[in-house]
This record gives sequence, C-alpha cells and structure tokens, in this order.
Amino acid sequence: MMETAAIKSGFGRLYLIPTPLSKTGGNTSLPEATLEITRSIRHFAVENIRQAASFLQWIQHPVPEFEVQFFPLSKRTSELQLQEYVTLLLNGTDLGVLTDAGCPGVADPGADLVKQAHRFGITVVPLTGPASPILALMGLGLGGQKFAFEGYLPAKAEARATVLRALETRSAQTGSTELFMETPFRNLETLKAAAGLLRMDTSLGVAANLTSPDELIVMCEVSEWQRRKMPDIHKIPSIFGLKAAQDAGLENRLKRKAVKKKFSG
Amino acid sequence: MMETAAIKSGFGRLYLIPTPLSKTGGNTSLPEATLEITRSIRHFAVENIRQAASFLQWIQHPVPEFEVQFFPLSKRTSELQLQEYVTLLLNGTDLGVLTDAGCPGVADPGADLVKQAHRFGITVVPLTGPASPILALMGLGLGGQKFAFEGYLPAKAEARATVLRALETRSAQTGSTELFMETPFRNLETLKAAAGLLRMDTSLGVAANLTSPDELIVMCEVSEWQRRKMPDIHKIPSIFGLKAAQDAGLENRLKRKAVKKKFSG
Repeated sequence: MMETAAIKSGFGRLYLIPTPLSKTGGNTSLPEATLEITRSIRHFAVENIRQAASFLQWIQHPVPEFEVQFFPLSKRTSELQLQEYVTLLLNGTDLGVLTDAGCPGVADPGADLVKQAHRFGITVVPLTGPASPILALMGLGLGGQKFAFEGYLPAKAEARATVLRALETRSAQTGSTELFMETPFRNLETLKAAAGLLRMDTSLGVAANLTSPDELIVMCEVSEWQRRKMPDIHKIPSIFGLKAAQDAGLENRLKRKAVKKKFSG
Repeated sequence: MMETAAIKSGFGRLYLIPTPLSKTGGNTSLPEATLEITRSIRHFAVENIRQAASFLQWIQHPVPEFEVQFFPLSKRTSELQLQEYVTLLLNGTDLGVLTDAGCPGVADPGADLVKQAHRFGITVVPLTGPASPILALMGLGLGGQKFAFEGYLPAKAEARATVLRALETRSAQTGSTELFMETPFRNLETLKAAAGLLRMDTSLGVAANLTSPDELIVMCEVSEWQRRKMPDIHKIPSIFGLKAAQDAGLENRLKRKAVKKKFSG
C-alpha cells in the first residue's frame, strides 16, 4: 500500500545490515556509514544471537548488550513472529537485520521479513557491505553483463553432475556467468567433479576466503584444471563460477575443424 | 598458470575498485579499507578518465592528478592494449580498475582484463563497495537463495515482452528471483509494460536511486501495480526484480479451484 508521507514518517525503518565474511584482517568491507547506522539501532532480527552480539561488540555498539533486543530470524520463523516484528516497525521502532556473514536476504534469511515490510509501506534500507557472489563475480573475471547465482548444489554426485551440466548449457546458450556454492567440506570434491565433467573450453573458477588476508581466487579453463594442482579450499567458504564458450563460437570452431579436415585430408 | 610464491610476489596486483552509485549524500557505501588501498595506487584502468579523476579527488587521493596514470578500459579495448596493462602488472606495478559507478566487471567493463590477469597468475583483488543488483536483491525481499541478473532488457516492446515472460517462467519453475535493468529514460515504460503483461500474483519491484538520500524501493504483486500510482523513476538509475509464484503452487491453486467448483457447482 502506498502510504502518505505523513503516516509513513511515523514508521520505523527496516535496515538490512551486511556483516563481514571473514573474521581475520580487521574491517576490510564495512563502510563507516553502515557501522554508524548500525550503532544507532537497538532492535535486531538475527540469524544467531551469539554471533550478532559479538558483531555489535566488534563494531563498538554504544548500547550495552542487555539493553539491545534480539529477535530470532530464520527460515523457520513463523508468519506470526514476522508480523510481530512488523508491528514493532509500524509503531516507529527501527529494526536491523543481521545474518551470520554477508548480506541479509542473499543466500541468507531476511527476505520474508522484507516482503512483509513492503506490504505495509515500511521503508526498507539495504546497507552496503560484502556480498560473496558479487566479489566472486568481480574477481573471477567471467563477465557480469548477465549472471546467475544458483545457491547450493545438490549433495549427491549424480544430481550435482546434472545441475553442473545444466548450468554449463545455459551459459553456452545465453552467455551468462553461473555462480554456485557448496557446503565447505565438499568444496574440493565439487571442484574435481566440475573439472572432470565440464567441457574442456569452459572457464571454471573458485573464489575462497573472500575479503580475508588469505583470499584465493583462481580461474582457468577446464583443460588446465585437469593438469594443475587443486587449490587448498577444503572447508574454506568459497564461491564457484563457470562460463561456457558460446554455442555459436563452438559451432564455428566445429565448422572450421571440418573445413581444415577437408583440406588437409 | 600457477606461479611459485617467489615469482608471484614480484607481480603487481589487480584491484577492482567499486565507486559510488550516487553523488549525493556523502560516502555511504565505500569502506575505509577500499579507500585506503585506492589511495596507494597510481595506475588505473578506467571507463572514463574525467569521472575517474573526479572520484580520486573526492576520496582525497594523495598523488596529484598529473602524476596518476590513466589507461582506457571499455568493451572496445583491444587484446593488445589489455596485454600492455598485463605487462605493467607483470613488471610489479599495481593497477586499479575504476568504472563510472558500481563494481568493475558487474554490468560494467573489467572482466576481460581480469581474465587476462588470471592467465598469468596475477593476484586479483575485488574490493567491497556498492553493487546495485545486490542492494536491489536485499531491498526488494524477493529472496536470494537463487537469483539471476539479466542485464539490460531489449529496447523494442515486443522483444522486451518476450524476455519478461521468459524470466517469469524461469522464476516460476526454479524459484529464482530475476533482476534486470533498463536505460533510465525507459524505466517507467518498462515498469508499466511488466505490470501489464506479467501474471497477477507475480511479485514485481523496483529499487531506484540506491544508496542515495532519495532511495526508493517499492515491491508488490502485479495485481496491485495495476491499481497504484507509478513511482517517479523516470531517468533515475533503477534495478527491477520479479518473482513468480511457484508453478507447483499454481497447480495446487488450480486444483483447489477445480475441487471448489466441483463441490460448489
């Protein structure tokens, strides 16, 4: 509903607050403006209370922990609970959303609450901070005119292979960069699987430990992955990306090959 | 190629530097770490020299403008030129990439240079800053477990309609949030077109003027867009998003409808 400015100005705002991806190396990724706004908020919907409290301490939130109010937020949070948070906002209280790492609502909880807030014309403010899919997209250099983030791949090898091939096909057809992730202890297994089943001329990369001093970003074609040593990404938070050679290009190459053969044979 | 640490340490680093989306309201989106690293760099590959120079002045880069070196970077930059930039890096010079607004390599130039850098084992460092697709994704609340950024829609109405319907179908089938953008003077036309042709229960939103004091984020179902006043997004940089009701859900609703009809009729 579109509210009049007068009514709307009485509402609290819903702030979406990114948190660091890495706990080493100091603050490499949060703008002072994000920290300042966060320090002014006393009510937080959080994925994990202990993590949220430790984050607020780390940014030197001026209000003592026992005076800050935390509300649980996960995919299990009921509509009724969300409605309570919305009521808080309607009554003029600012509410911040904090997840364990990265941006609320991006491969993390938060979206359901934002959706409810929009229903009531509450102002939603996404703050700037680290987003691993974007940092990976930049760092891999696979192209970001068109991209997709697939989230977690299936755990079972066969289903994972099907999805990887589908992503490659989509990339070949549309020119998109396809990003995906894994439960960290399956990172290496997944990278090996991808290097074993994708086309030789598909570009494949991994961005691990983003924003930390141990950041590692590697990208090359599948044919080279088959020769090189695997990077040390076991249990390290990582984002993977692939981009297939365009199907049109592939057709041309096949044509050229055929012509070559014709003339050489 | 994987270089040994010893050789690699002699290389310069390729820094991908985000720039503000909005010129009003001070620094709302760049972490101090991003600014500090940028101030230490003297060589920049840039989308636009004038904009880059004005950005460096704004962040109080300590080196006078005439001592900073700018190299052009766009989709027209030749392989040969990119190779020159890579040579600079191989010789130990740090190089920063600056686009006009937002993140290099995300709907902006930069990816080709990053790709070349990876071929030579040069360390690529994506810095944190504002990324309009992510801010829109957070702010719209459409869900970010799985999302795609389609880039610019086709200019012609018919082709645009085809793409919009295809995005809606993909969203219904996979549960993805679909993001796209427009040349700003076609924003309103596109929003009206989308509200006119998408399914009534598809969620549709727009995030305009992100990170600025005039930020505007609106999201509701198509049925409501048809009743409400269009927001003032003419010529305002905007990101659009849509999410369709899941096809399975739609089927269930149709089934329920059929059952209802059967029992009531």
